[in-house]
Amino acid sequence: MKIKNDSLLRRTQEKLSKDTAKNPITVVVESTNQGGFFTKVSIRNHEILSDQPQGFNGQNQGPKPSELVLAALAACQETTYRIYAEDMGINIDSISVELTGTQDLRGFMALNEEVPAGFTNISGKVFILSEASKSDLELLQKRVDRYCPVLDDLKRPVDVSLTVEQLKT
Amino acid sequence: MKIKNDSLLRRTQEKLSKDTAKNPITVVVESTNQGGFFTKVSIRNHEILSDQPQGFNGQNQGPKPSELVLAALAACQETTYRIYAEDMGINIDSISVELTGTQDLRGFMALNEEVPAGFTNISGKVFILSEASKSDLELLQKRVDRYCPVLDDLKRPVDVSLTVEQLKT
Repeated sequence: MKIKNDSLLRRTQEKLSKDTAKNPITVVVESTNQGGFFTKVSIRNHEILSDQPQGFNGQNQGPKPSELVLAALAACQETTYRIYAEDMGINIDSISVELTGTQDLRGFMALNEEVPAGFTNISGKVFILSEASKSDLELLQKRVDRYCPVLDDLKRPVDVSLTVEQLKT
Repeated sequence: MKIKNDSLLRRTQEKLSKDTAKNPITVVVESTNQGGFFTKVSIRNHEILSDQPQGFNGQNQGPKPSELVLAALAACQETTYRIYAEDMGINIDSISVELTGTQDLRGFMALNEEVPAGFTNISGKVFILSEASKSDLELLQKRVDRYCPVLDDLKRPVDVSLTVEQLKT
């Protein structure tokens, strides 16, 4: 393991320290419901579809919202492993993630006030093809799980404020 | 406002109470990194792409993970509004959501241990085209923000456990 001085992490740290990187940044999405539970979400030049499965009155035209949460976590784990591995001089030949979230629907369906509406828990495995030593990978995992943004969004209470704007015909 | 006895909410509550609905349920995703930050996430018969923007060493082949988190929240708000509005007999002609999340990159980039890696805060507006009364919409919002699963995932600390499995060539 050898720290790289020109890693993306170091270069971004330097820009942030010198105040030459835009910070803080904002992340913006806009969703437009297409009828029923089907929605299209616009994100810069990208579009994400979401829907409910047919068993829950949906048309299954995309993943359901809780699946998108896990997709975000899987992608964010990969990203953070890439960034911190590069910085630590650890070569990763490939990386994949499997996640399982458990939900007790009595929360979402307002049947039991003590049951959370969201995930009871999330567990998963990160598969890393690498010749790195076990101790280097352990240190890498420790850093990733400290600095992975989406993992932090889930493990820490995030301040969310939403307002309703009524439109009339 | 009149409670519907045959709403999706009531029917699902009845199934859950009679133990004829599968519960708890699991949500499963599998991501496979395609090189760099680009990844494909498999979710049942769906696929979500994620990447970093070009300004952050990505190829912008999909939204970044934090954008997927907000997409999940927007879609989940719409879904929960639909379900609880139907149950309350409130007609919603259309619904759309705009969300903005703020991130201080010093967290993700390990420059300041007091700055969170994820969102500092998330704010947003839910636009609802409806002839409902103001008080009915206020009651609806209260129920939605209590039972929206992804909002709950963000506002409440979720138990997440991840392990690393090293593969060798």
